[in-house]
Amino acid sequence: MNPIHVGLLGIGTVGGGTWQVLARNQEEITRRAGRPIRITAVADKNLTRARELVGHAARTTDDAMSVVTDPGIDIVVELIGGTGIARELTLAALRTGKHVVTANKALIASCGNEIFDAAQAAGTMVAFEAAVAGGIPIIKAVREGLAANRIEWIAGIINGTTNFILTEMRDRGMSFPAALAAAQRLGYAEADPTFDVEGIDAAHKITILAAIAFGIPMRFDRAYVEGIAAIDPADVAYAGEMGYRIKLLGMTRRLAAGVELRVHPALVPARRLLASVDGAMNAVLVHGDAVGDTLYYGKGAGAEPTASAVIADLVDVTRMHTADPEHRVPHLAFQPDRISDLPILPMSEVETSYYLRLKIADRPGTLADITRILAERNISIDALIQKEPPEGADHADVILLTDRTREREIDAAMAAFESLPSVSGRIVRIRVEHLGRS
Amino acid sequence: MNPIHVGLLGIGTVGGGTWQVLARNQEEITRRAGRPIRITAVADKNLTRARELVGHAARTTDDAMSVVTDPGIDIVVELIGGTGIARELTLAALRTGKHVVTANKALIASCGNEIFDAAQAAGTMVAFEAAVAGGIPIIKAVREGLAANRIEWIAGIINGTTNFILTEMRDRGMSFPAALAAAQRLGYAEADPTFDVEGIDAAHKITILAAIAFGIPMRFDRAYVEGIAAIDPADVAYAGEMGYRIKLLGMTRRLAAGVELRVHPALVPARRLLASVDGAMNAVLVHGDAVGDTLYYGKGAGAEPTASAVIADLVDVTRMHTADPEHRVPHLAFQPDRISDLPILPMSEVETSYYLRLKIADRPGTLADITRILAERNISIDALIQKEPPEGADHADVILLTDRTREREIDAAMAAFESLPSVSGRIVRIRVEHLGRS
Repeated sequence: MNPIHVGLLGIGTVGGGTWQVLARNQEEITRRAGRPIRITAVADKNLTRARELVGHAARTTDDAMSVVTDPGIDIVVELIGGTGIARELTLAALRTGKHVVTANKALIASCGNEIFDAAQAAGTMVAFEAAVAGGIPIIKAVREGLAANRIEWIAGIINGTTNFILTEMRDRGMSFPAALAAAQRLGYAEADPTFDVEGIDAAHKITILAAIAFGIPMRFDRAYVEGIAAIDPADVAYAGEMGYRIKLLGMTRRLAAGVELRVHPALVPARRLLASVDGAMNAVLVHGDAVGDTLYYGKGAGAEPTASAVIADLVDVTRMHTADPEHRVPHLAFQPDRISDLPILPMSEVETSYYLRLKIADRPGTLADITRILAERNISIDALIQKEPPEGADHADVILLTDRTREREIDAAMAAFESLPSVSGRIVRIRVEHLGRS
Repeated sequence: MNPIHVGLLGIGTVGGGTWQVLARNQEEITRRAGRPIRITAVADKNLTRARELVGHAARTTDDAMSVVTDPGIDIVVELIGGTGIARELTLAALRTGKHVVTANKALIASCGNEIFDAAQAAGTMVAFEAAVAGGIPIIKAVREGLAANRIEWIAGIINGTTNFILTEMRDRGMSFPAALAAAQRLGYAEADPTFDVEGIDAAHKITILAAIAFGIPMRFDRAYVEGIAAIDPADVAYAGEMGYRIKLLGMTRRLAAGVELRVHPALVPARRLLASVDGAMNAVLVHGDAVGDTLYYGKGAGAEPTASAVIADLVDVTRMHTADPEHRVPHLAFQPDRISDLPILPMSEVETSYYLRLKIADRPGTLADITRILAERNISIDALIQKEPPEGADHADVILLTDRTREREIDAAMAAFESLPSVSGRIVRIRVEHLGRS
């Protein structure tokens, strides 16, 4: 069988992994795909690095566009990242009739609508399994494996850096800056960790999952994003005492009024499997109306796990390369003419439970004020703990767990708390996700 | 778009679920599949039951062969079970050019080689996602999602009945018969629980997973199968004390000499995610050389979870219905001419760790005899606990955890133990699976 010819754009961590796994497992991958998958051109700004890895086994160049326009290339693998040159190259590749495989979550989440339109117009495929949760085949699971279901919600630990940091904070009682430094030392966090710790990376991924789960366009611009930099070790400890663990969750949920799309730290009951996903691992919990809960777990980053997803896409595209577009799985799981543009709900409309921590002066009537403020807004209290003030201090911590309520009600209650003379300092508010009953 | 016409054979639990989910989610499933999927004929021995559920929405009959030969039917869904009439109907459907979707693990594990040959000859598809782990899309994950990997091993909790029983034994200190009775009361176990508790059902499923993971034929006849009926609450408790949980595992592993294919109870370290899979839930842990560990979790049985998998297959088959066979995913993940018939290793050649419990007379020198017997066979001891004899008894329990060793060495050691005058009664032997390092 004729090999299929692949052009690789970017041969850094994931590109290098893709090169190596394809070489190592060539025989087995060919047995699956029905024809050899061969990287015949590699573009990288760092030509020396490319040449060292590839030798004479493929053409190397620092001109990515020359690979995109090369008529000998069938599939372009885009591993450059970002939404600048990567977007231009992807659109150019599609325009010249090439299929594109990408691991670029920013690109798909931010420019996916434009890119899928271009692919649709050109009759080509864009595959992006590697963009979400690394080696876990979650795109395939949601888009194909759960096709029978009305998917109701997805909750994911989809950023390994923040999950590693939160695990260190819990296991070692570390502060956020100390745990971040540990993550950087061990290579789990970048020198500039903004994208990870502020939740942006997770927001890209949950945007993509929401689109394929609900058949809606990419709406990254409407996602609510809150990172973990403000998480205090005290809250990690209190959450633990109450039977919860703090995780950075990507959440999306379909309601009659619209779709929730949000990333923020959340308390998750410790008995839930998702709460046991520790260190740099990822997991995605999907709730479908027929199947109930299913969970997918694995490495969400790294050279070979991500390469695993890139190559799975290459096998799929190779198999469908010469097939009519009607036989292909639609990019967004639903046929392009059957995408429904449900609104994304503003955060004030989201309904969930809340963990609140207030610093109160140890004087009579304060708890009565707090409970009255909640009662006035019909917010039920699930649990309340007042701690003894530390030796010599005159302020004590009060921790509240509320029942489900709308976020705007909690915002109003927090404003009322802050106006109480006996409440001092910042009120800590972390959402609580019970993730269904079980 | 013209609907695709489905003939349903068997409208019991899963058939009823399939009917209902297809009806309920019709609009959404059509948006995914690109054309409506319609059940137009239903065959069931119990015609009254079929008519009550279906009404006039489909033709009902008690003659399944009339559905198979109906030229108006595109896809036959086989939900009869067993390897008798189900096999005949499946082969007949393939011969008349129909595609088959089945949830029948016994059929695929026992007659899959014959069935895939027939499908290959007829140019039709056989889809069997529902045969393994109910609603979890594990066939798709292994066959497509992990296509880049050399899969090294799979360990699965793939029988909900036995996992429910073992969970009850641990949580409530119940005996096996009491936990089985509870499972029967709650509908988790059949009146005749043989298939489940003796491990046969799990062996069907691990046989199928081994075939698609390693590109080998179905070899159910070579699987080693041991159930949970002999598990004693004392061992559940001792395992717990030592940081393990007892699970019925389906295991398959590829080694240079051949493939391990086995079902038996095993101690799993409590910190592994698989150990936290409780009640009737299923989970499959897959180790690939590139991706590392990935885990898939969900409901392994029940009307709608299984229907979820049946309908996902229907969507796939609908999409590929008119495509050339070359574009399809091969039945066994590897191209039919690239299946390799690796030998299945006999159990005596399997290498793993062991939990042993011996009843010994409390007299000097017994432990020295035991440790000498192990040392002579180069079996290292990972842990050894001698319990105090219960009040008034003159025999004490000794519990041993061994390092990895070949099963024939343990068999020999056990024979030597039994010949010691100070060892009495049956020696309990349960395998220990560490499932990789982490």
